[in-house]
Formats: sequence, C-alpha cells, structure tokens
Amino acid sequence: MTVVTDMLATYPKDLGGVDREKLAACIQACIECAQSCSACADACLSEDMVAELTKCIRTNADCADICDTTARVLSRHTGYDANVTRAIVQACATICKACGDECGGHAEMHDHCRVCAEACRRCETACNELLATLG
Amino acid sequence: MTVVTDMLATYPKDLGGVDREKLAACIQACIECAQSCSACADACLSEDMVAELTKCIRTNADCADICDTTARVLSRHTGYDANVTRAIVQACATICKACGDECGGHAEMHDHCRVCAEACRRCETACNELLATLG
Amino acid sequence: MTVVTDMLATYPKDLGGVDREKLAACIQACIECAQSCSACADACLSEDMVAELTKCIRTNADCADICDTTARVLSRHTGYDANVTRAIVQACATICKACGDECGGHAEMHDHCRVCAEACRRCETACNELLATLG
Amino acid sequence: MTVVTDMLATYPKDLGGVDREKLAACIQACIECAQSCSACADACLSEDMVAELTKCIRTNADCADICDTTARVLSRHTGYDANVTRAIVQACATICKACGDECGGHAEMHDHCRVCAEACRRCETACNELLATLG
Repeated sequence: MTVVTDMLATYPKDLGGVDREKLAACIQACIECAQSCSACADACLSEDMVAELTKCIRTNADCADICDTTARVLSRHTGYDANVTRAIVQACATICKACGDECGGHAEMHDHCRVCAEACRRCETACNELLATLG
Repeated sequence: MTVVTDMLATYPKDLGGVDREKLAACIQACIECAQSCSACADACLSEDMVAELTKCIRTNADCADICDTTARVLSRHTGYDANVTRAIVQACATICKACGDECGGHAEMHDHCRVCAEACRRCETACNELLATLG
Repeated sequence: MTVVTDMLATYPKDLGGVDREKLAACIQACIECAQSCSACADACLSEDMVAELTKCIRTNADCADICDTTARVLSRHTGYDANVTRAIVQACATICKACGDECGGHAEMHDHCRVCAEACRRCETACNELLATLG
Repeated sequence: MTVVTDMLATYPKDLGGVDREKLAACIQACIECAQSCSACADACLSEDMVAELTKCIRTNADCADICDTTARVLSRHTGYDANVTRAIVQACATICKACGDECGGHAEMHDHCRVCAEACRRCETACNELLATLG
C-alpha cells in the first residue's frame, strides 16, 4: 500500500476530517478489485463452460469499471463534495456485493472466481467502512 | 444517436421492460458529457485564472470518470441487475448536478464552462428520467 | 458532433497547427467506437454461440478501453506532447483494425458485429487521417 | 503483488511463451502508476502555484488513463494479439517517460511529484522490460 499512502501523505492541503487509514485502504481495495475483475472476466471467457459464466463476465466488467472510477474519485481531494463521494462509494459497495456473490457461486469450480470473490469482499468491506466514517 | 440506438436494436436477447428510448438517450448523454468534461477540465487548466478554477477542474474529472462508467454499465444487458444500474445512474445524476452547478457558475466568463454545463444538465435530466422508469 | 466541436471551439488558448476538423472527427469516432465495442462485447455474451465469440469479446473489451483513453488524450491540449499523441493514436488505429477485422468476420451472422465493425473502420480511418496531419 | 500474480496463476488456459514475472510486474506497475498520477494531478491542483503546474496536471491525467488501459489489456489473455499488446505497452512507456520527466522536474519542490515520478519510472522500466520479451 506504499504508493497510495505516500500520495495521501504528500497532499499539500488539509484533508479535513477524513479517516486516512480507511480512505487509503478503500483506494487500495478498489484498484486491486478492478484488476482482479478484468482478469476474472477474461479467465471466465477462456473456460470451456463459458456459456454458463456470461452473467459472471458481465458483472466482472461492471465491477472493474466502477472500482476504477471509485479509486479515481477517492484519490482526489480538491473541492471535496461529500454527496459525490457517498454516491460513488455506495455504487461501488453495491457492485462489489453483486460480483462477490456471483464469483463466490463459482469459487469451488474456478480458482480465478475464488480469488476474485475475495477481492470483491475486501472491497465491499472497505467501501462500507469508509462510508461509515463519512458525515 | 445512430450507433447507440443501432447497437441497442441489434442486442440478440430480450431487453425486459426497459424504456429503450430513455436508455439510449441516457447512454448518449453520458458519453457526450464525459467528453465535454474531459475537455472542460483541460480548457480550465489553460485559463490564466486557473487558480480560481481548481474545484471546477476536479469536478469535471470526477464527472468524466463517472459518466464514462455509467455509459458502459448501461451498454450491457446480460444478467441485468437493477440494484447496480440504479446505484450507478444515481451517482451519475449526483455528479452531473454538481458539475452542472460548478460549470454553470463560470458560464458567463468561460464559454467552455457554458457548453459543459449544458451537457451536464442534459445528462442529469437523462439519468433522472431513466431512473424514473426503473422498477 | 456538436459538443466535441463546441468544446474544441471554446478552448481558450492557441491549438497550434492542429487540423481541427480531423481532430474533432477522431474524438467523435473514438467515443462512438468505444460505446459500440462495450455494447458488442455484451451482445456477443448473450449469443447462444458465445463459445465461438470469445476472441471477439476480448478484442471488443480492449477496443473500448483504448478508444475511451484516446478520446480523452485528444480532448486535452494543454502542454501538448506530439510523441504521446502519436503513440496512443497509433495504438488506437491498431486495435480498431484488429476489432474491425474480428467483428467483420461475424458481420453476416450477427448484426451487432456488423454495426460495430463499421464503427471500428470509421475510427481506424479517423485515427490514420489524424496521424497523417501530425508533425 | 498477490492479487495480480494469483489471477495470472489461475488463468485456465495456456499463456503461451509470456514471461509471467515481467507481465505481472508490468500490470502491478501500471495500476500503481495510474493511481499515483490521479492523486498527483489533484495534489498539483491544490498547490498555490498551480499556474506553474498545468503541464504536469495534464501529463498526469494522460498517464493515469493510459496506464489504467494498459493494465486492463495486459490482464486479458484470450485471443492474444501481439500487435495490440505491443502498441499499447509502447504508448504506456512513452507517457510514463514524459510524466516521469515532468514530475521529476518538480520533485525537489513537491513531494507528491517526487513519489509520482518514481512510480512513472518504475512503470516505464516495467513496460520496456515486458516489450523486450514480446516476440
């Protein structure tokens, strides 16, 4: 988590009352989950039983996009708008729950779904913990 | 709107009860708003008074990211999940409101903010109209 | 193309020797192709013969990502760096050629691939025409 | 690097002759650099001397977009196309060089630029090392 925390530590202005640890953890969880979901969508695509994994591929694609965007919004602090942060982190928690459930359902059969489900669960938790600290 | 509606028309499965016109309008509004916000952030950056436009630049960056992601999620129909759609379209309406207000405040002085504020307003409206049709 | 050209027209500083028409056409082609590819990947995913379309889905995913990024880079003019522009537009022409070929191969069987192949061809052409104008 | 390498290890098909270590290192460097650049653009925006950092902000924005896209392309293996991989990794090395130079020029004055320049250098190196292994 070095780069995320280093960048947070070098931000030149006041970060307000934000919980830095929860914020850094959420950014880190988002970028790991985004990468994991891009990779899992592609791994599902290469399974012989791809026809049974189409919902999983779609959910992974949404999760990668929303997690990447959430990591970006959370990496910005200038002109902070709590409503925007709350809305996108809420959307991120929603898709991570959906994707964790979907991948979790294939975890016993596909190791990539197992690894990805864990990344989704961590990200869902990190989003909810960050949301709890927002005013 | 040709390509967006053409792609919607050629989707091979049932689209459920979705309002195709509102859906296509929202996708189109999102991609136009995303481009407009990327361009407006950069135009603000090139203004001599950039120091007074930093919140605008940041809000534009968030709006570009969230609109791009929303357009992607709305362009997918396989394994539709109403909770995810609702959450991301809600986040999109929230940032478009914020960015429309921010750019709107500079519209008299900067033409790029005027054009961008209009794109944000159209996208906010399109998101809210789509939300109203979701179950 | 209204918003793209309006944003280009309202950029507050000199755009250098850029060919505005080719630039606007390329941005517009990129955002249309990106949306079309996201939709085509999902449409392929919903085909009964998805197992025969996995390379198409993957290529569509790459094309959506690269086109979106290219549209963003081309929407910025501050501190212009010709090497960066050339490299990303070249990458975009490469993926649009690959995706146009791939979707083109399924165009007779799947209308979404036909529409998408056309968007890819237009974007490939727009990229190459813009590249020809760059110093 | 756990999630990146875990996802690579669980891909269900043959990865061909790819150098897994270099590939994983490049994906990891791309996602760290993308996050760092989003954060650095925003940190620059909050500096009192923002007017002198506009080229840095723009270069950071391009670098974040290109690195995110490169990480996504490299996370996919289905229907591998060496031309596409080479073109996007080349574009990524180009922007990382440009952004490392730009941020490096402000590293003594701004700690966020120092941290970000290091992330850009690592990513440039990782891209070039991966390129050297591609056929």
